[in-house]
Amino acid sequence: MSIQDHYEDLGFAKIDHSRKARNGFSEVVFCEGKTPDQVTQIAQSILKHQDNLLATRADAAHFAAVLAIASDASYDERARVISVIRYPITQIGIVAVVSAGTADQPVAEEAALTAEALGCHVNRFSDVGVAGIHRLMAVIDDIRRADVIIAVAGMEGALVSVLGGLVDIPVLAVPSGIGYGANFGGVTTLLAMINSCASGVAVHNIGNGFGAGYMAATICRQIDRRIREAKGEQ
Amino acid sequence: MSIQDHYEDLGFAKIDHSRKARNGFSEVVFCEGKTPDQVTQIAQSILKHQDNLLATRADAAHFAAVLAIASDASYDERARVISVIRYPITQIGIVAVVSAGTADQPVAEEAALTAEALGCHVNRFSDVGVAGIHRLMAVIDDIRRADVIIAVAGMEGALVSVLGGLVDIPVLAVPSGIGYGANFGGVTTLLAMINSCASGVAVHNIGNGFGAGYMAATICRQIDRRIREAKGEQ
Amino acid sequence: MSIQDHYEDLGFAKIDHSRKARNGFSEVVFCEGKTPDQVTQIAQSILKHQDNLLATRADAAHFAAVLAIASDASYDERARVISVIRYPITQIGIVAVVSAGTADQPVAEEAALTAEALGCHVNRFSDVGVAGIHRLMAVIDDIRRADVIIAVAGMEGALVSVLGGLVDIPVLAVPSGIGYGANFGGVTTLLAMINSCASGVAVHNIGNGFGAGYMAATICRQIDRRIREAKGEQ
Amino acid sequence: MSIQDHYEDLGFAKIDHSRKARNGFSEVVFCEGKTPDQVTQIAQSILKHQDNLLATRADAAHFAAVLAIASDASYDERARVISVIRYPITQIGIVAVVSAGTADQPVAEEAALTAEALGCHVNRFSDVGVAGIHRLMAVIDDIRRADVIIAVAGMEGALVSVLGGLVDIPVLAVPSGIGYGANFGGVTTLLAMINSCASGVAVHNIGNGFGAGYMAATICRQIDRRIREAKGEQ
Amino acid sequence: MSIQDHYEDLGFAKIDHSRKARNGFSEVVFCEGKTPDQVTQIAQSILKHQDNLLATRADAAHFAAVLAIASDASYDERARVISVIRYPITQIGIVAVVSAGTADQPVAEEAALTAEALGCHVNRFSDVGVAGIHRLMAVIDDIRRADVIIAVAGMEGALVSVLGGLVDIPVLAVPSGIGYGANFGGVTTLLAMINSCASGVAVHNIGNGFGAGYMAATICRQIDRRIREAKGEQ
Amino acid sequence: MSIQDHYEDLGFAKIDHSRKARNGFSEVVFCEGKTPDQVTQIAQSILKHQDNLLATRADAAHFAAVLAIASDASYDERARVISVIRYPITQIGIVAVVSAGTADQPVAEEAALTAEALGCHVNRFSDVGVAGIHRLMAVIDDIRRADVIIAVAGMEGALVSVLGGLVDIPVLAVPSGIGYGANFGGVTTLLAMINSCASGVAVHNIGNGFGAGYMAATICRQIDRRIREAKGEQ
Amino acid sequence: MSIQDHYEDLGFAKIDHSRKARNGFSEVVFCEGKTPDQVTQIAQSILKHQDNLLATRADAAHFAAVLAIASDASYDERARVISVIRYPITQIGIVAVVSAGTADQPVAEEAALTAEALGCHVNRFSDVGVAGIHRLMAVIDDIRRADVIIAVAGMEGALVSVLGGLVDIPVLAVPSGIGYGANFGGVTTLLAMINSCASGVAVHNIGNGFGAGYMAATICRQIDRRIREAKGEQ
Amino acid sequence: MSIQDHYEDLGFAKIDHSRKARNGFSEVVFCEGKTPDQVTQIAQSILKHQDNLLATRADAAHFAAVLAIASDASYDERARVISVIRYPITQIGIVAVVSAGTADQPVAEEAALTAEALGCHVNRFSDVGVAGIHRLMAVIDDIRRADVIIAVAGMEGALVSVLGGLVDIPVLAVPSGIGYGANFGGVTTLLAMINSCASGVAVHNIGNGFGAGYMAATICRQIDRRIREAKGEQ
Repeated sequence: MSIQDHYEDLGFAKIDHSRKARNGFSEVVFCEGKTPDQVTQIAQSILKHQDNLLATRADAAHFAAVLAIASDASYDERARVISVIRYPITQIGIVAVVSAGTADQPVAEEAALTAEALGCHVNRFSDVGVAGIHRLMAVIDDIRRADVIIAVAGMEGALVSVLGGLVDIPVLAVPSGIGYGANFGGVTTLLAMINSCASGVAVHNIGNGFGAGYMAATICRQIDRRIREAKGEQ
Repeated sequence: MSIQDHYEDLGFAKIDHSRKARNGFSEVVFCEGKTPDQVTQIAQSILKHQDNLLATRADAAHFAAVLAIASDASYDERARVISVIRYPITQIGIVAVVSAGTADQPVAEEAALTAEALGCHVNRFSDVGVAGIHRLMAVIDDIRRADVIIAVAGMEGALVSVLGGLVDIPVLAVPSGIGYGANFGGVTTLLAMINSCASGVAVHNIGNGFGAGYMAATICRQIDRRIREAKGEQ
Repeated sequence: MSIQDHYEDLGFAKIDHSRKARNGFSEVVFCEGKTPDQVTQIAQSILKHQDNLLATRADAAHFAAVLAIASDASYDERARVISVIRYPITQIGIVAVVSAGTADQPVAEEAALTAEALGCHVNRFSDVGVAGIHRLMAVIDDIRRADVIIAVAGMEGALVSVLGGLVDIPVLAVPSGIGYGANFGGVTTLLAMINSCASGVAVHNIGNGFGAGYMAATICRQIDRRIREAKGEQ
Repeated sequence: MSIQDHYEDLGFAKIDHSRKARNGFSEVVFCEGKTPDQVTQIAQSILKHQDNLLATRADAAHFAAVLAIASDASYDERARVISVIRYPITQIGIVAVVSAGTADQPVAEEAALTAEALGCHVNRFSDVGVAGIHRLMAVIDDIRRADVIIAVAGMEGALVSVLGGLVDIPVLAVPSGIGYGANFGGVTTLLAMINSCASGVAVHNIGNGFGAGYMAATICRQIDRRIREAKGEQ
Repeated sequence: MSIQDHYEDLGFAKIDHSRKARNGFSEVVFCEGKTPDQVTQIAQSILKHQDNLLATRADAAHFAAVLAIASDASYDERARVISVIRYPITQIGIVAVVSAGTADQPVAEEAALTAEALGCHVNRFSDVGVAGIHRLMAVIDDIRRADVIIAVAGMEGALVSVLGGLVDIPVLAVPSGIGYGANFGGVTTLLAMINSCASGVAVHNIGNGFGAGYMAATICRQIDRRIREAKGEQ
Repeated sequence: MSIQDHYEDLGFAKIDHSRKARNGFSEVVFCEGKTPDQVTQIAQSILKHQDNLLATRADAAHFAAVLAIASDASYDERARVISVIRYPITQIGIVAVVSAGTADQPVAEEAALTAEALGCHVNRFSDVGVAGIHRLMAVIDDIRRADVIIAVAGMEGALVSVLGGLVDIPVLAVPSGIGYGANFGGVTTLLAMINSCASGVAVHNIGNGFGAGYMAATICRQIDRRIREAKGEQ
Repeated sequence: MSIQDHYEDLGFAKIDHSRKARNGFSEVVFCEGKTPDQVTQIAQSILKHQDNLLATRADAAHFAAVLAIASDASYDERARVISVIRYPITQIGIVAVVSAGTADQPVAEEAALTAEALGCHVNRFSDVGVAGIHRLMAVIDDIRRADVIIAVAGMEGALVSVLGGLVDIPVLAVPSGIGYGANFGGVTTLLAMINSCASGVAVHNIGNGFGAGYMAATICRQIDRRIREAKGEQ
Repeated sequence: MSIQDHYEDLGFAKIDHSRKARNGFSEVVFCEGKTPDQVTQIAQSILKHQDNLLATRADAAHFAAVLAIASDASYDERARVISVIRYPITQIGIVAVVSAGTADQPVAEEAALTAEALGCHVNRFSDVGVAGIHRLMAVIDDIRRADVIIAVAGMEGALVSVLGGLVDIPVLAVPSGIGYGANFGGVTTLLAMINSCASGVAVHNIGNGFGAGYMAATICRQIDRRIREAKGEQ
């Protein structure tokens, strides 16, 4: 194993400081199931390594605790994302975050904030579900300017298939978990997206806006890396 | 119970000759799980009551047996439907049968033949799935001329939601059972259709073209009945 | 795309004002997952376009907010429906809303109020489940006078099949979500209804009284449209 | 453990000869998954203990093998049941076997033959499903004469609930496994029956006609035992 | 339909006063999903017809409301059962209620109280699960004295199979819903019981102690009826 | 049945005092679904038989009640385990408890405390999930020193397969129930572990740290027993 | 709708010749569920438009039929892919196709052939599952040279999570459908992959090698497009 | 990574020759999904490294191919296991393989042959299911002499819980996949075993006799290793 890996051991957690070298981005803190104190300790470990901080699934208590050690922390309540941006982020590409309905926006925003924290320029397109397809058609040309599309939808998730048929760039589908009756908290949407008749579509877990934002940034960064190689920069 | 109901008892089956009075159409024979001989006996019971015969889920052996007692029987192999039409069928309305892909056509055709046998004029629209939505847009005005739409699709069934958003007539959705991987023989499609974000959509069982055709005809017949009442005919 | 579609963009939502032309009814507001403020903004956008307002899945906070901008708003707590009726509704047909037990009534009432708001005359038949089938038999002749039947039931949903066998008009089945043990919040009822042995039955999502009411009105409106065509009115 | 239990060990199987004393009936041979030779060895072990033989889920090869050692064996191909009746069976009660459709008859017949082999008098009522409820009403008074009812149905299994509401004797429900689309080989029927709104109903596994027949006979035997006790016979 | 059926219509409910004649017992009130006021109205309707009252799934509020109109009402908090016993109940047989663990007792008690209200003598056997099978063996001879056994268990429900193999009287299995992890609120137990390798077992819905108690009483009543017939009483 | 089994009957529970002889350890109290008073009575019954007490799934109320009768009781809030250790525990082997993430630690700790109470020496390895596999590699040689490994993970549970491929001692896998979206409270993890491509792995129920700790101790005790036999001690 | 879309209507299918302009690649023929004759007609329609042909899920009969109209067609039996390459394919990037076991190779090869037909250079890495993780470590540096990784695995799919933790380029996960017991034809693998603890992973349908190959090529093409823009070529 | 791992690369497979050092046993060949030729090449690679060969899930064609390169190969048709034993196997412990019914024996035998090939002495106990529990009681003392028990059962798998309550050695449960109706090919059995109320039980995949045999041998080997350490041998 040729990678020089190292981590800081906090007892309850091992902070993976080699991840940036290995995966391209620092460790993002997933707050759900962690105490505010645990999140704060992890945040401190990351911040002292000269990294920016991104923490998802954070509630108000998590944010209060982080604020106490980083007064420049900001919090998006809707998306439940904490961020501390102290170092400039290299810009690496354009992501379109497209959501079907008003209720899908928290997941869409988690995706958008994640992609932004990782260096992407994000364009947001809200409430363009297929029950009134002219709303999607009105913005499709703007959507096509992105490097990657993140499509967030609930219910039957048909937005993903329609979108997939209209563009020639990668579409990352995220079930929002919105729906009722036999939606099963997003399972029907997930299955429908996995079965999409459109090509150029891949799928993330229910409500996993972070995952789609991270994947979009990974694609953008590969584009950026190859451009720099092509220009003889790297 | 005030209905004068009666039936013929064949031992293995009781042929419900009051159904036409009660439900508006004669009993349709569901052949799956019945022997050719059983189907033939039921067919004879129906034909001798001066009814037309419609038999679904029929295989070649069922057809051969029916042909032996009704030389004017016809058979659609793709839709697995036998019909013997001896009496004129009152025309009662227009049904659009819209299908997403080539593989959805057997179910679509079962629906179409059932609706036709029950008196509907049927217009067929094939291979207009949403992965290339311009194909649907090219025929949408023709589809809108129907009294009822039957939409047959597999995979994620997004056709139903797009269609539901574009028309103001009832849409009957039928999962074709076509799909692979996590489609589960149409279950994903069924759930997606049940979760459609479009209004004016109701759903039938996987592969149940007959059910949709029958429901479409029931709606058309109610239209026809009310028109005749309005004209003072009935 | 030949339709002249337009919508109002509120940022978090795009209000589809062409829906009435395209689908026959104005947009109905689904309140679940929207803040009272969002619902109010959407309500204002609809009301200023000279439309009546129908809002489903509304809680007390939603109603209080709407009441502040429309003092003539009314609220049915059981069915969770807000309505503001300022313009006359054209009468278009008769809907029978039939429910199996006392606990099924909120869903039945959502269906009834939706159909009424969309112009249907609604007759309600409550607590006529099949465990005491004489209660259904006592009212079956009244039920038969409708253009469409909405059947709401929980548990095993047998009411739908019995009803489907007794009438010759369309039956729209809605699982109420009532049941216990292996009912799974209505999934068993949904599957049982999808598998109904009766013809002339189509199914809506669990608890989706709105969907059934809307579908019933769509059928009634098609009847009304054809009658007017037949009379040379349109 | 005070029971004097004993069995014969054939190596691949241990024949439980104390079952008759313990459970009231001899071991019934379940043939599925056993070779014809294994079935024959078990049959021989049972027959030599002066017992009658009942073997279920038997195919033609099983029957041929049993016939070779018991020329008086009989076989019902539809129900897949082999029986060798050499000793008189005490009559213990009346069972009504009621089935919804023609395709449910193999399971119904397995139940009927099992109950008969165990001493019950069986009355059969076929094709009385609820889509034409007058067919059930025509025979309901005859059904009520039984000690126990076995109700076999497929699809949504509504027959069970209707029947349960009409009688005051125990109803044993058996899903036949007949159905299509989202029936899942009888799972929907099983769940619907488990959720029946009628009281006095208990449920057996999909296709388990034997289980219902055995349970019916167990009930009849308890009736018989108590009658004999009441008469001072035992 | 030859039955003289009648019921009282309370608007929200139709009280089925012919049930006693038809099914042998009066209507039992299922309180879940009904308001205290609705339960009270139904209770009044039943009590004024000279019937005893049994109400299941009742919470403290339901009981308080019933107490206000029937000061002789009693309430079992654990089993959530209200009863008002004003008329003597004919004794009709013996039921053994056997439960596997301490946590299964509320369901077991619902079954026991139901059976008692319907005239059965009930013997209770608690905490005799198979993880320590000697506890079951110590009481098995007492259990065998019953006419019917109700077996309540959670987790994998193995008690049912062991019991079924040890007795020759009917066993009614009830999954208690107790379990954790992949028990799914009793679904695993239900499926395991449905798959029991023992004969003479039938299954009720998860937590449906009432259903099992009612079924047990139905069996006991049939025994009682036949004994009286045998004695020439009826 | 040759075992001299006995138990103490508390009415609501039968305390199995022969379990230690039969299964090697005293009965462990599962508190969930029992009242504090019931737990206390069971605890008293165990403690008076000169046994140590281990109680799992205990909440604060259970602990308070036990403390009142055993002032030397200790409580681990995270793992929800109460223990009263009054008699020396024979040391029987080494267990490595390995967990993937911070949120998996309560289940891991339940396993660790159980194994310790039953005589095992436990080594804990936390936050060594496969997303940063160098963290696992850094401790793998320490893990290999155990007699049995308990691996606790959520999400896709890949830790189990990687671990299983790296060691030659038994691995007991426990899904922690941690995950989101389509994790279904640990069901996906359970299924993934059951499907592990590594050999030498067996699986416990979701969150069942107790079960894995008990199994680990059972294996260690068998090792200890055979060593003592080999040394001629037993 | 501003897109100049057109298609050829074959009756049973509408060939979407605008897809190349819209989505970047010509229509790929999915053969499953189409007759050899239908595939041949579609192939002719594509080939006469000066396109290369790619047809997936093709059996021997499909290939024989295509060969008759295109003697230069080639067929990969394992991957069930037909290709006719008549025009040069622009090279657009590097894809690593990594598979866990020997049995996963057909799906991996479908992915690889699709990506190659769409212009990617493909490197294949076989049998590097995590049960022997040193095999993966031996090739990880080669894998890291790709623009996109396609990871194909069955069973619990742990390869995806391990791989995702070791690289900083996008990983497209495909469940192969290989597994037994509770793998459910790939469903467990799909769910495990959707729940992967690693970031930078998105998922395709079970067995959908085509989908992953197409997605990989879509990403590569976006890279290529941006490089050409950066160089001022486009 | 400090382990000196190596493997032979056959192109389609990488034979892991370091597994014996790492996991204690050589690679066992899983034949399902591999061609006879592939199995033969892998077999040759293993045999030339001076190892014994064990190949599971082998059909007749696999065996014929192996026989051609190893005339001393033997084949158990029932268990589908090929073995070539050329080097003495160190004896490491005793395994009891207990199966519930005749149809469970192929899975039980796969477990038994695997354990034997890996050095265990195996005692087999067949047809001791709980429907006749005296058959199990007759052999329980012999079963208790083992180091590990493998319990194979179908249907509801109650054997596992009864066995787990009677012994104090580890029980490895394997669902055989035998069952019908709602058994779902062993899923019900798997879930029931995972929910076993007995302690000291861990579970393997449906039909995974190999997995249980391997796990049993892993436990036995750890016993053997510790004994040798205790004796100062290693």
